[in-house]
Amino acid sequence: MVDAANERIERPVYPTALGASSLHRITLLGHDLAEDVMGTVGFGELAFWLATQRRPSPGETRVFEAALAALADHGFTPTAIAARLTYLSAPDSIQGALAAGILGGGSRFLGVTEDCGRFLHDELGSVDGTLPTDDAGWDVLALATVTRQRERRRFVPGLGHHVHKEGDPRTPRLFAIAAEEDLLGPHLALFAAIGRVHPQVLGKRLPLNGAGACGAALADLGLPLELLRGFALLARTAGLIGQLAEELRHPVANEIFLSVDLNNRSVPPDPYEPPFPPVGIDPPGGANG
Amino acid sequence: MVDAANERIERPVYPTALGASSLHRITLLGHDLAEDVMGTVGFGELAFWLATQRRPSPGETRVFEAALAALADHGFTPTAIAARLTYLSAPDSIQGALAAGILGGGSRFLGVTEDCGRFLHDELGSVDGTLPTDDAGWDVLALATVTRQRERRRFVPGLGHHVHKEGDPRTPRLFAIAAEEDLLGPHLALFAAIGRVHPQVLGKRLPLNGAGACGAALADLGLPLELLRGFALLARTAGLIGQLAEELRHPVANEIFLSVDLNNRSVPPDPYEPPFPPVGIDPPGGANG
Amino acid sequence: MVDAANERIERPVYPTALGASSLHRITLLGHDLAEDVMGTVGFGELAFWLATQRRPSPGETRVFEAALAALADHGFTPTAIAARLTYLSAPDSIQGALAAGILGGGSRFLGVTEDCGRFLHDELGSVDGTLPTDDAGWDVLALATVTRQRERRRFVPGLGHHVHKEGDPRTPRLFAIAAEEDLLGPHLALFAAIGRVHPQVLGKRLPLNGAGACGAALADLGLPLELLRGFALLARTAGLIGQLAEELRHPVANEIFLSVDLNNRSVPPDPYEPPFPPVGIDPPGGANG
Amino acid sequence: MVDAANERIERPVYPTALGASSLHRITLLGHDLAEDVMGTVGFGELAFWLATQRRPSPGETRVFEAALAALADHGFTPTAIAARLTYLSAPDSIQGALAAGILGGGSRFLGVTEDCGRFLHDELGSVDGTLPTDDAGWDVLALATVTRQRERRRFVPGLGHHVHKEGDPRTPRLFAIAAEEDLLGPHLALFAAIGRVHPQVLGKRLPLNGAGACGAALADLGLPLELLRGFALLARTAGLIGQLAEELRHPVANEIFLSVDLNNRSVPPDPYEPPFPPVGIDPPGGANG
Repeated sequence: MVDAANERIERPVYPTALGASSLHRITLLGHDLAEDVMGTVGFGELAFWLATQRRPSPGETRVFEAALAALADHGFTPTAIAARLTYLSAPDSIQGALAAGILGGGSRFLGVTEDCGRFLHDELGSVDGTLPTDDAGWDVLALATVTRQRERRRFVPGLGHHVHKEGDPRTPRLFAIAAEEDLLGPHLALFAAIGRVHPQVLGKRLPLNGAGACGAALADLGLPLELLRGFALLARTAGLIGQLAEELRHPVANEIFLSVDLNNRSVPPDPYEPPFPPVGIDPPGGANG
Repeated sequence: MVDAANERIERPVYPTALGASSLHRITLLGHDLAEDVMGTVGFGELAFWLATQRRPSPGETRVFEAALAALADHGFTPTAIAARLTYLSAPDSIQGALAAGILGGGSRFLGVTEDCGRFLHDELGSVDGTLPTDDAGWDVLALATVTRQRERRRFVPGLGHHVHKEGDPRTPRLFAIAAEEDLLGPHLALFAAIGRVHPQVLGKRLPLNGAGACGAALADLGLPLELLRGFALLARTAGLIGQLAEELRHPVANEIFLSVDLNNRSVPPDPYEPPFPPVGIDPPGGANG
Repeated sequence: MVDAANERIERPVYPTALGASSLHRITLLGHDLAEDVMGTVGFGELAFWLATQRRPSPGETRVFEAALAALADHGFTPTAIAARLTYLSAPDSIQGALAAGILGGGSRFLGVTEDCGRFLHDELGSVDGTLPTDDAGWDVLALATVTRQRERRRFVPGLGHHVHKEGDPRTPRLFAIAAEEDLLGPHLALFAAIGRVHPQVLGKRLPLNGAGACGAALADLGLPLELLRGFALLARTAGLIGQLAEELRHPVANEIFLSVDLNNRSVPPDPYEPPFPPVGIDPPGGANG
Repeated sequence: MVDAANERIERPVYPTALGASSLHRITLLGHDLAEDVMGTVGFGELAFWLATQRRPSPGETRVFEAALAALADHGFTPTAIAARLTYLSAPDSIQGALAAGILGGGSRFLGVTEDCGRFLHDELGSVDGTLPTDDAGWDVLALATVTRQRERRRFVPGLGHHVHKEGDPRTPRLFAIAAEEDLLGPHLALFAAIGRVHPQVLGKRLPLNGAGACGAALADLGLPLELLRGFALLARTAGLIGQLAEELRHPVANEIFLSVDLNNRSVPPDPYEPPFPPVGIDPPGGANG
């Protein structure tokens, strides 16, 4: 006889609401893939649906796809260059070039979307009572938020841009689209208020950047915060395919490689000295607990 | 003075038609990102545009998105499991989990789309004169194609499926959508003819699988053959985000890990013996050319 | 004329002490690769040298290689399974399978080495005055350390193991090797003391795990803390090659895949509900700062 | 009751000779990890052992480590640049930066080692009867080999180098080390002969490059041919850690990024035109087989 605990180890079962197949049928999210999804559901809509297991409305899809468009490609970013160089080096493996590009999607370049969405969410979650209902109310909350970050000597995610110093053109457009679709929720509202009040605290006016606005918009769409970076990476995957397509026809990767390799300067080793000098110590008694 | 050759090394210039930024403006493919792309261009449409630098028609977008939907998720594939296990092991790096999933997009599981598109393309390219204009003509070409592969002891890419042995439901749907949009081109036509005639050569009827049909449809859309695998990977990225979203809420990766780890059986080493035994040979004269 | 600022953009120079080539010579770390490195420098020694630009002593090499051996392979870990599944799915790209395995080297499974090294280092850095010189002194420091973590409701990195509940056999061995080579430094000393005193605070005895001991030993060797995870990954790369070599001859990945795929259970979608319900809000004034 | 077929699906067992753990013991390759491996087995030796499940002799280890040293780092290769750029972009995930570097280990830059080893192996396998026993015999075989490649209009892998046009210094050194250890086997012998005779066929003298020599040496060591690229990647992982360590202290990645980004030139889109124009075709009958 087998008891229940063993049974579980012996015959695990893996539940999923995503793709499933039988002899004549493929289902996805409980729908018939061929009949109900193919030809009917757009790709952005499908990505939203897969991530939330809830079909978005046309308005939600429009805001979502606007955010993806805002994040898809920014020209020669480090990730785009890494993908092109990897393709140069291993042209037989396009999956490797895409993966290399995606791996640059970390805290610094693509992380603002996630950081901003999470930051706004945490601020909203710390509100005691109901959320503001007008600009004046949001400004009060935003002022407290920016002041607190200042006191902690931390940046407000989504504030500032190294090129668009006088305003990121994506930001007002995303606000407008969200408003048109009646989807301007608390994350965007707080982000807008931060844009209005931060000069009072910081002493200078910084732009609300597009990556941050996307984080706010995606959070307002009710998407999982843990995956906000994932949506930025989905958008970027489309951009990376564009980069590789251009590299195929108008290559620059070898030129980039040579511009570095031919300009290297050999220098003597610089031995690393750790903060604590390694020293011999008498062996202690009883090394293992 | 600087001569032309040096100039090139010192000041390389990197042309791109993709993303570009100036103080007040971001352009993508020559269009204003905020005004002309965000809120107007769907994500599938944008991905097509980025890859070809040509804006697809609504019909092209519909066929493209139908193919992406067909490829987005197939449940617990090796790539989905790899992504979930990587997320289990390194939850701080969602880009790593996505990249791990994408890296499974190689020759065996996701490669059929590319292989089939390229195969059909090569067959079409080898036609002397004009392409067929009716089913009978395509059947003649398909018969020659299948017969030649048979003689070479090679599979016809896109033929056969381990589950949908009586027909992959995605295939007729994709043909129908392409026909509705007047985009049923020579790759799909040849693929359909292969579906009709192959039993005459192989002695049994195999299904035209959906991944192969997607390859044919994407090739008919005029997408670069070198990137067909890339589009399958783009579709899969959306599917992988769905897998990770589900893993976050209904985790199975640890159960999968334990089902393997707890059922491991330690066996003695099996020393590898190379086809040629390593033997000492007298040093030859003049090792370097 | 070109001014200094432009010059920098036009002709950047990239210094490196690593590999450099000229017509007849290759140098690495300032040494002749062919004459001074090949055939003379072991691979572990070389890895240490590359990471620190300082050639390790034989004793340092021995401790370093002992730590690498301790971390190289732990059987069917999530990373090993992910690498095998990726190889199953894309056998044409061994680099992809290795990369997929490496990507699991994050916070949870391989991160202990880095976390423990950093934790000990921070504790040592916070000591006011000189470090202890005998076991009694280290115990006082360790007691304060464990107590503080307890108050912060945080784990002590390196403490505990899910299998080796009565002691990880790697730990005393690594202490012994470090002692034999006179390389038992403050990180290991503090780690040992934590092993002695933690039951006073936690009320139970936990083992000092091997991954943590490796972190302490690598920190005592003066290796950069930012790269401790990198050394764990280097060790793991050797282990992953072993996994793939075994997979080539005694494959299990397809069996693992089937054990999941055949035991999937299709469940209805479970729509994600975000913590804050998305609500429409009147558009605020002045979206961009 | 459960029949044998079901049993297999329900309780798969996964054999492995690699790492295994029990309460008090960890074994690796059938040996006690703590007692028999740590402190005794060098890292190169361990990597060889893991890959072949056979412990190498000291001479085999020396040749193996010499090949790894030859392949570890070549300065600012595309893979090194990709790793540095990924680290710049996602500094929180060192595993991602290493993986991005490894993903460049494909056919073009790191593939020569594998290609050359396989090529020589195939040539040796096609010899009818016994292998040559002196230089004159190897020259005859090499002449046939190079001539055949010439007729097929294919390159001989391992022949030629873009920098070391008069001889790669790693090549004679690797031959010498292999000879010293009595491990100069048929792959190296044939490679040396190719170096002697190819000018008779090609009309010019090309160097035997070091990557090719490593492939020949690794094949002579009896390592699995399918994994030769894996050993190059193991060596490169040590090199990439060196690159990241240097990047941490003397960063160049941002400079590289800016040198590209600031020198981008926005050009109009260049719409992709496929070899076959996409045309509408009347829907064929019977799309699915």
